[in-house]
Parts: sequence; C-alpha cells; structure tokens
Amino acid sequence: MPERQLSLNLFIYPNGHHEAAWRHPQSVPESSMDIGYYQQLALRAEREKLDAIFFADSPSLAESGREGLRIRFEPVTWLAAIAAVTQRIGLIATASTTYSEPYNLARSFSALDHLSKGRAGWNIVTTSMAAAAANFGLDEHPSAHDRYAQAEEFVQVVGDLWDSWEDDALVLDKAGGVFADSTKVHSINHVGAYYKVKGPLNSPRSPQGRPVQVQAGSSEDGRDFASRHAEAIFTAHQTLQSATEFANDIRARARAVGRDPRLLKILPGISPYIASTEAEARRKFDELNELVLPHVSLGQLRLLLGVDLSGQDLDAPFPRHLINFEGIESQSSRFKLIIDIVDRENVTLRQLINRLAGARGHWVPVGTPVQIADLIEQWFRSGAADGFNVMPPSLPEGFEVFLDEVLPILRQRGLFRREYAGSTLREHYGLSRPDSRYALKTA
Amino acid sequence: MPERQLSLNLFIYPNGHHEAAWRHPQSVPESSMDIGYYQQLALRAEREKLDAIFFADSPSLAESGREGLRIRFEPVTWLAAIAAVTQRIGLIATASTTYSEPYNLARSFSALDHLSKGRAGWNIVTTSMAAAAANFGLDEHPSAHDRYAQAEEFVQVVGDLWDSWEDDALVLDKAGGVFADSTKVHSINHVGAYYKVKGPLNSPRSPQGRPVQVQAGSSEDGRDFASRHAEAIFTAHQTLQSATEFANDIRARARAVGRDPRLLKILPGISPYIASTEAEARRKFDELNELVLPHVSLGQLRLLLGVDLSGQDLDAPFPRHLINFEGIESQSSRFKLIIDIVDRENVTLRQLINRLAGARGHWVPVGTPVQIADLIEQWFRSGAADGFNVMPPSLPEGFEVFLDEVLPILRQRGLFRREYAGSTLREHYGLSRPDSRYALKTA
Repeated sequence: MPERQLSLNLFIYPNGHHEAAWRHPQSVPESSMDIGYYQQLALRAEREKLDAIFFADSPSLAESGREGLRIRFEPVTWLAAIAAVTQRIGLIATASTTYSEPYNLARSFSALDHLSKGRAGWNIVTTSMAAAAANFGLDEHPSAHDRYAQAEEFVQVVGDLWDSWEDDALVLDKAGGVFADSTKVHSINHVGAYYKVKGPLNSPRSPQGRPVQVQAGSSEDGRDFASRHAEAIFTAHQTLQSATEFANDIRARARAVGRDPRLLKILPGISPYIASTEAEARRKFDELNELVLPHVSLGQLRLLLGVDLSGQDLDAPFPRHLINFEGIESQSSRFKLIIDIVDRENVTLRQLINRLAGARGHWVPVGTPVQIADLIEQWFRSGAADGFNVMPPSLPEGFEVFLDEVLPILRQRGLFRREYAGSTLREHYGLSRPDSRYALKTA
Repeated sequence: MPERQLSLNLFIYPNGHHEAAWRHPQSVPESSMDIGYYQQLALRAEREKLDAIFFADSPSLAESGREGLRIRFEPVTWLAAIAAVTQRIGLIATASTTYSEPYNLARSFSALDHLSKGRAGWNIVTTSMAAAAANFGLDEHPSAHDRYAQAEEFVQVVGDLWDSWEDDALVLDKAGGVFADSTKVHSINHVGAYYKVKGPLNSPRSPQGRPVQVQAGSSEDGRDFASRHAEAIFTAHQTLQSATEFANDIRARARAVGRDPRLLKILPGISPYIASTEAEARRKFDELNELVLPHVSLGQLRLLLGVDLSGQDLDAPFPRHLINFEGIESQSSRFKLIIDIVDRENVTLRQLINRLAGARGHWVPVGTPVQIADLIEQWFRSGAADGFNVMPPSLPEGFEVFLDEVLPILRQRGLFRREYAGSTLREHYGLSRPDSRYALKTA
C-alpha cells in the first residue's frame, strides 16, 4: 500500500449539489427535513470508509426567489444526532467566527468531539453572506479583511479554551475527594481587540485535544489564514492548473510559517457526473440542467458577483461589462473563479449558470467511472489535491454511483483505504493529536 | 383514569444531585463523560414513560475548589445525540438569554425539535452565575432585573423566528419549481432595545411549532416572566406551604395576563431518599452526607449567599449576622429559601450544608416508597405541584429505586400514565401546538 492515500469527504447538500436536484423525478425533497435521511447517508459513507461527512452553513436564509430558499439546519446539533448512530466517520460542521461567541462555539464543538469519541471537525468560516449581518444587529456586514482579522483572534480564543483543561486534569479520586487537579485547569485570560474571555472551558479536554480545523476561503486573506490554522482546506477549482497553483501556494505559505505542508490536507470539491458512457453521463448533467430555473440561478449569481443580471439575454455572450470589478464581491475567490470561466470559455449567460448550477463553481467532471477515477488520480498524484470533498449532484443516487463505480477503481489502484486504521477524524487524516498549549508552557 | 396526571421529568446531573454523589462507592464518575451513560438514562426514563429528561447549564465553570469543578457539556448538542437513540421522551435543554445570540439559539432548538420529531424544550435562563460575564467580554454580570428585561425581548425574537415560516410555507412542488411559498416566509424585522434581527429563520417551522418554553427562576422578576412565557416551571420548595403559595401566586399572575393557568405546569424539584424503612432511607442520606467535603459546600454556599463562611465553626449555630441582606444575591429565590431554612429550623452551619448538599435547596424527602408516593400525591392533589422534576441523589441507583418502587404506586393510584398518548413533549404535557404568529396576522 502506498504511503499517501486519498482523503475523501461526503459534502452533504439536502437533495444534492446541483441547484435543481430537488426537482429531479427521483428526488424526495421531503426527506431533506428528516434526520433519518442524513443518518443513512452517513452510515453509507462510513461503510465505504470515507473520512468524514461535511455540512456547510450560514446563519441566514439564502434567498433568490421563492424557488431558491435554502434550508440550513444548525449543523453541530444535526451532526450530534448523526454521531449517535455512527462509529467511525468524521463529522465536520461549518460555524461562523463573525456571528458566534467563542465560548459558545468552543463548547458546542467540544461536546460534539466528546460525544463522537473524537470525530469532530470545525470548518472555520467568516460568513460571506452579507444577509447574516441583519440577523445579528449589524447595519453592515464587515469586510472580508476585517472578518479575517476577527477570525484570527476568535480561533486563538477557541483553541485556548479547548486546551484550558490539560489532558490529565481530571483526577476522579473518590477516596481523596479530588475531582480535578485545579492546577491543570487554566483560565485563559484572553484580552484582545475583539474578545475578552477569561475561561476556562467548563468541560475536560476533548478526545482529539482540539477538533480538526478546516477552512474554506481561498481569497488572499483566506489563504493566509488557512496556512496558519487549517488542517484541511476545502477549495473550488475548475482546472488542474488552478488547483495546482493553489496547492503550491498554500504549501509555500504553510512552510513560511513553519508548518509541515503534509499536515495540511488540500481537498477540492468534485461534483462528478458518472455513467457507463461519456454520452450517458453528459445526458445526466443535461437532464438536471433542464430543470434549472434561470431566475433562481440569476439570484445565486447576484450573490456571487454582486450584480443583478435578470433581464439579460440568456443566450447572448456573458455581459462582462456589467460586472463591478471594484465591488466587495470581487475580492472573493469564487468571483475570480467565475470571471475565469467567462474569460477562458467565452460562455453565454445560460452556459455560465448551467455550469454553476452543477456545484456553485466547483469542479464538475463528466465521464465514465474510469475517466473520473483517472482524473482523481491525476489531481492526487500531481499534488494538486490530497483528496476531495465529494459533492454528489443528486443524493443519494449521485453518491451511490460514485461509491459503487468509482471507489472500487481507486481502491484497486491503492489510492484509498479498505478499512479504517483509526477511529478519530485526526487519525483518518493522518494528523497528530496536539498537546495542550498550557501543558507545553508548564512542561 | 383521572383527568389530571402527574408530569415527571428526570433532571440529569452527572453522577446524581447529591454534591458528593460522585464519591459514593457505587458511582462510576468516568461515565459522566460518556454519552452512552446519558443515553441509557434517557432510554430507561422513556421505558417508564416519563415526560422528559432535563439538563441544567451555565456558560462558565462553576468553581468551588478543585473538588467542586462542575463539568457541563453543551446541552443541545448532548440532547441531539440522545434524541437519536430515543423515540418519545421529551428533551429539555437550558440555554441563556444573557449569553447567547437569539438567531443562533433559535436555530439550535429548531434543529433539536426537527431531529427529535417534536420533543424539544427550552429552559429559559438569564444565567445567575456571575462568572459567565467574564467569558463574554463583560466587565460586570448584569443585574437580575436587567437580565430579565433583556430576556423578555430575547424570547420575543426567538418566538418570532420560530414562527417565521408558516406551517404550510414548504411547498416542494417539483413540477412547478416552487420550493417554498415565499409569501409565507416572513422577515421578522425586529428592532428593540437589545436586539435588531431581520430574519426569517433558515429552516421551516419545527414539529411543535415552537419548542416547549420552560422557566426556572422564582424571584419576583422570574415569576412575572414565567407567568407570561413559561409552559412549565421548575422550582425549588422545602415545604408544601411554600410550594402552595408559589403555585397560587404563579396561577394568579398567569390569569392576570389572560393565560389559562392549567397550561402552565408547575414542577418542583424532588430529590428523594427511598428505602424499605425510613431508618434505612435516612442511613442512605447520611452515607452521602458523610462524603461531603465542607470546603466544597462552603464554596457552593458562597455562590448562593454571596458570603464566604469558610473558617466558621461548622457545629455552631448558623452565623446569620454575617449575611448581607442588601447584596445582589439577596434578590434570588434560592437565597430566600436558604434563609427560610435557617430561620425555621435553627440549624448549624454543618446541618445547613448537608441539607443543601442533597440537591442545592430542592426538596429532599426521606422515607419508604409509600411515604414518598404519599407526599407526591399530597403535593399534586393539593395543587402545589402539577408534577415533579425528579432529581435522584445518585445516578443511576437513585433513579432506579424511584422507578422500581415509587412509580408503580403512583400508577396504581391512577396518577401517572402507563403508556404515552402522544409523541411530542407538548402532547406529554397536555399543551396545544401554537399557531404561527404570522399565520394569525394574515388570517
């Protein structure tokens, strides 16, 4: 077995990542309210020894017309109920540094890590959706730069809280009446620009020491942040070249801050259309694209590009002149990715929205199982990816076909595990368990 | 079967409610970190058809010396993992209005209600523990009066968010491409003294419409708040007379604001010591009291009375002259309850701390199964209680003996259900499902 193995997560979107997945004749949109549906997906992923399941999140309702209301259940709570019926698979929830309190967030993830016996991961986001601000008393959503400055401090506070009980603080000496060794339970006494938090946390250090830190922004600020704090990075790339450049850049930044880049898993999204022939796979994609409602897609595009393109001719060349390259959206990596597609492929507006409908800008390869496995192997062996966030276009069908048809090929090629070697998410990713910062200080 | 039935919750404290329960030879304190232990307690409570399990909470570490560090896992996350292995029992989590964001709290409880199919309850607290302030950037813990003013607005916002999707907002019309009827998904546009929240929530209305609202403060402000917002009240009383006065007062306040007092369940805590003879039950209590560490108890007492009594003679009469009757603690119902014990029973300091070690001021009856059942029936039939929060001195033993010995007597007397009639917590408590405020407005 080769040393380096693919990391594979299932990124769960209610009925699948294609924007119109819920409209597919096979979809059961009612199931997306039912925890049992998500538990079944997680159990299936676990039977196939995937590293983790993953939920995105934003503390606001994404609105793009009545057809596009995007339901988001609070993911830590949701994952706790999934943890209870699974044994090994990792559980990654997105949570916002801009719209949470660090003490509360540290507690939720610590509880998830405890109850799952070490399977929690935190996808650290600063929340890009400006609508969230109005749910938290802010007149204006902070700029990305300010959000990352706040996130930097937030992550410091949360890490300190997770470390505030040393691993051996809990004594439980009944006879001596010593419940915990209070010299190993530390106030963190954080005083910073954004937060003042005394601590300690009110629960012992969790099985992984700290839940795995995941990060998903790919802007300049996001890359800097990831290079310092992320243990896994979720990222969106349309081409091998773009993914390679990104991976090289991240690894260089990690080295520059003294980190071993091998301990930072780079996991692009992949939303594959798979069938026994390429034409059939293409037909599957087209079938979903025919269900796209352009005004819903244009609502999504407005959020990503900051401009309302409804009323434009869908079949004319993309109206590049309407884009505001100075707007706040233009700083996002997703904005740049979309403009890259426009410039590279000279698409019409309809072609663009169909492309984005697939997985909101993530890679959407179309092909046979061998073709998809070849692409995965190519990205993996070239160093463009350490693994993937698998984003099935439809659920559960799109996931089943990936597991049944593509995964066996990857296994035959020695690229993916047949059994779990460990039981924590850190172990799946090959990451070591961090010592408590306070233990280090007093050692 | 009589019309009126007891409501019974299991209030879970890691190894039991007696302060020294973890030191008992039979206790397994390690189990209190293990979700499986709590799941087993919940399953046992569910087999016996109890209404709910309940977790207290505070976003800070309660410290009273190294022996008294009180672990608190974040309870909504914890309960989600318990929900996954149970079917019918209610799930009540405490959460703070002073130290949470209403949008985040509304989401967590909505998720818990969805994933449990309608079994969530929110115990609304303003957080009495002053140490919490320092974990949330505050120099000073707000006064009880200010906290209740904030809570009033908080509860309004959370209720509006829970109602923001009307029950029939979700359409899921695949053919027509209508996911939800946006005219039935409402921005709440709340602007108040403490909060500005636009909404709507990002998930559909939950099975119970709103999770059951529970309240546990019994001060003047707390009673006013409860009379307006609570559907169940947890309260501490040492005597039938005190419980009766409280119940009458709450019902009068509820009537005064136009509520039917029968829809407000008054549930005092009960921490019973049960054995086949009264002497044996007394011996059980004494056995736990012998494990009490006075400096731990004095630490707890300092939090409740605002004065450090360490160094005082434990066997002299209680030093009443040291108490500050003008301090902020003196406004709490628990302060008054303790002073009542002192004045009524003329106790020594040691006798007081042993009394409080039982269940921090809750009712601690000692007797045979029939004696305990008689007391429960007396409180219930007299109207002093609609049921009880059962607080076993030790867990699981103290709960087992209650279920095995006392519950059958209550059932024989027709006071408690043999089977669940419904599947939601509202149904267990006999509470109706509220309509959405927005549906009422547009009807």
